[in-house]
Amino acid sequence: MSRIAYVNGRYMPYAKAAVHVEDRGFQFADGVYEVIAVASGRLVDAIGHLDRLDRSLNELRIASPMSRGALLAVMAETIRRNRVVNGSLYLQVTRGAAKREFAFPENARPTVVAIARNVDLLKAAANARKGVAAVTQPDIRWGRCDIKSVGLLPAALAKQAAKEAGAYEALLVDRDGNITEGSSSNAWIVTKDNVLVTRALSRSILGGITRSAILELARREGLRVEERPFSVQEAKAAKEVFVTSTTSFAMPIVMLDGQPVGNGGPGTVATALRAAYEAHAATHATGHPDWQAPFLRP
Amino acid sequence: MSRIAYVNGRYMPYAKAAVHVEDRGFQFADGVYEVIAVASGRLVDAIGHLDRLDRSLNELRIASPMSRGALLAVMAETIRRNRVVNGSLYLQVTRGAAKREFAFPENARPTVVAIARNVDLLKAAANARKGVAAVTQPDIRWGRCDIKSVGLLPAALAKQAAKEAGAYEALLVDRDGNITEGSSSNAWIVTKDNVLVTRALSRSILGGITRSAILELARREGLRVEERPFSVQEAKAAKEVFVTSTTSFAMPIVMLDGQPVGNGGPGTVATALRAAYEAHAATHATGHPDWQAPFLRP
Repeated sequence: MSRIAYVNGRYMPYAKAAVHVEDRGFQFADGVYEVIAVASGRLVDAIGHLDRLDRSLNELRIASPMSRGALLAVMAETIRRNRVVNGSLYLQVTRGAAKREFAFPENARPTVVAIARNVDLLKAAANARKGVAAVTQPDIRWGRCDIKSVGLLPAALAKQAAKEAGAYEALLVDRDGNITEGSSSNAWIVTKDNVLVTRALSRSILGGITRSAILELARREGLRVEERPFSVQEAKAAKEVFVTSTTSFAMPIVMLDGQPVGNGGPGTVATALRAAYEAHAATHATGHPDWQAPFLRP
Repeated sequence: MSRIAYVNGRYMPYAKAAVHVEDRGFQFADGVYEVIAVASGRLVDAIGHLDRLDRSLNELRIASPMSRGALLAVMAETIRRNRVVNGSLYLQVTRGAAKREFAFPENARPTVVAIARNVDLLKAAANARKGVAAVTQPDIRWGRCDIKSVGLLPAALAKQAAKEAGAYEALLVDRDGNITEGSSSNAWIVTKDNVLVTRALSRSILGGITRSAILELARREGLRVEERPFSVQEAKAAKEVFVTSTTSFAMPIVMLDGQPVGNGGPGTVATALRAAYEAHAATHATGHPDWQAPFLRP
C-alpha cells in the first residue's frame, strides 16, 4: 500500500495525489521514469538510476527538476513516510503542464512524482526458486528504447499477452527474429558452450541498471560474456534463459513459448548470479540507515 | 483560454482539473484521444470521431466509459461552459488509475477528460493562403499508428524538430524512404499527372477523419485518386504537397526541406479541397445550435 505520494514539492495523501489534465506526461507520454529497489529502507544503486534519469532527460531536453541531492532527499522522505522496508521507489519526471500542442512548451516546469511501496519479496524469491514462463511477442516499440520514457503502451500490451498465456514475461522479438529484451526486463541466455549472452546496448534496448551490475558480477566470476543479438531459436536451444530487472533481480525462465528451457528448472548460472546480485544490492544501497527506527518499533 | 474541464463526471475549474498520479494515461500512455473541430459552437464530424474512438478503445480493450449519447452531451456541455464558438474539443479516455503494473488492472474504471478552447481561425486561414514549410524526419513511432493513443512522444519530438527548422510540420519517413504521414496530420501530394496521392490505411498511419472527408470530396470532384506509398523524392518533384487534419483542414506545403514545392505557392487542388472541406465542415456539425445565444449576446 502507498499512503503518501510526492507531487511537485508536496507530500500528499495517496488518494489525492494528482497531476494536471494537461500534463505532458498524460497527453503526450512526454516524460521519463525510474524504478529503484528499496532494501532495508535504502535505495539500491541509486546513483546508477539517477545517472540514467539524467541521460533520459537530456535526450528529451527536459530540464532537470532539482539537484541530485534534493532528489535523493525527496526519495528518502517518500520511503520514510510510507515506511517502506523492502520494496520499490517509483520516480517520474515529465516536461510539465502546458496548453496542448505537440512542440515543446516555452515555460513549463517539469512535473516530479515519487511513489513508494513495500513489495512481497518472498513471492519473488519463490518465483526464482521455481523459475517462470515467458512467451515471445513482436517488438513493436518505437525507435528510442534506450530512453526510459513513459511511452509504455506497447510494453503493457506485450506483458498483458504474456499474462493471458499464463506467463510471467514477454520476450520481444525484432524484425530479424532476434530477442531485444523483455517487456520490463533485459533478456539473457547461457549457451550450450557456457557463454553468457545479452544484447549489446543500442537504441533497441534499455540499458538496465541491474543488467550492468549482472554483467560486472559475471565478469568478476570469470564467466565468458558476449554482448550481441541472439535469436529466438538460439534462446530455445540454450542451457538457460533469464531476465533481469530492478524488481525481479535475475529471474530464470524455465519455459519459453510452452517449451521447457534446458533441463526445465532454474539454471546454475542464473541462480548464482541472483545470489551474487542480492549480495551486491545489500552493499550498494544508499539512504538513511536510521530512518526506520521510529516506525518499526512495535 | 480554457475555463472549465470535464474530468470523470465533474466539470472543474481548469486550474484544478487533475488526474491521479497512477492514472495509466500518465504512467503508461495507456489511453486514446480525439480532437474534434468546433464550428459555430457545434462539433464537426462528431460521429466519425466517436467511431474512431470506439475503434481505438476496442483495439486496446479499454472499456467504453459511457454511452455515445452521454459522451456527446459531455462534449456539448464542455463547449458550452467554455463558450467555444470556433475551436476544438479535446477528449481523452484512459484505462484508468491503478497500482502500477504493466499488465491491465482488474478493476480500473476508464478516465475521461474533455477540454475545449477557442482557436484563432484567422491565423490558420492566413497560413493556408500563403502555404507553410515542412521538413522530413525519420518515422520512429511504434507499430500501431492506426490506434490514436496518447503515446505521442515521437510525434512531439518530430514537431519540435520542425519548429526549430522554422517549419510548420514534420513529414515522417519510413525505412523504405516513403512518407507515412505528418506528425499530427495526413500527407498528400498531387503528381505532375494531376493524380492525388495519399498513403493507404494500414498500421503505419492514423485513419484521419479529415483524410476520409477529403478523399470523398476529391472523388466527388472527379479527381484521380491513388492510395499508395509515395517517396520523399516523389513529394519533392510533385506539383503540390499538403497535409490534412482536424485543426488545419487542408494546409498547403510550399517548402519541403528548404526546397520550393511546385511553383512555390499554394496549389489549386489543395486550395479547392480546403474550400470544399470548409463547406463540408459547416454542414457536418452536430450539437445544440441554440446553446450560444445566452452567452454571445452582448
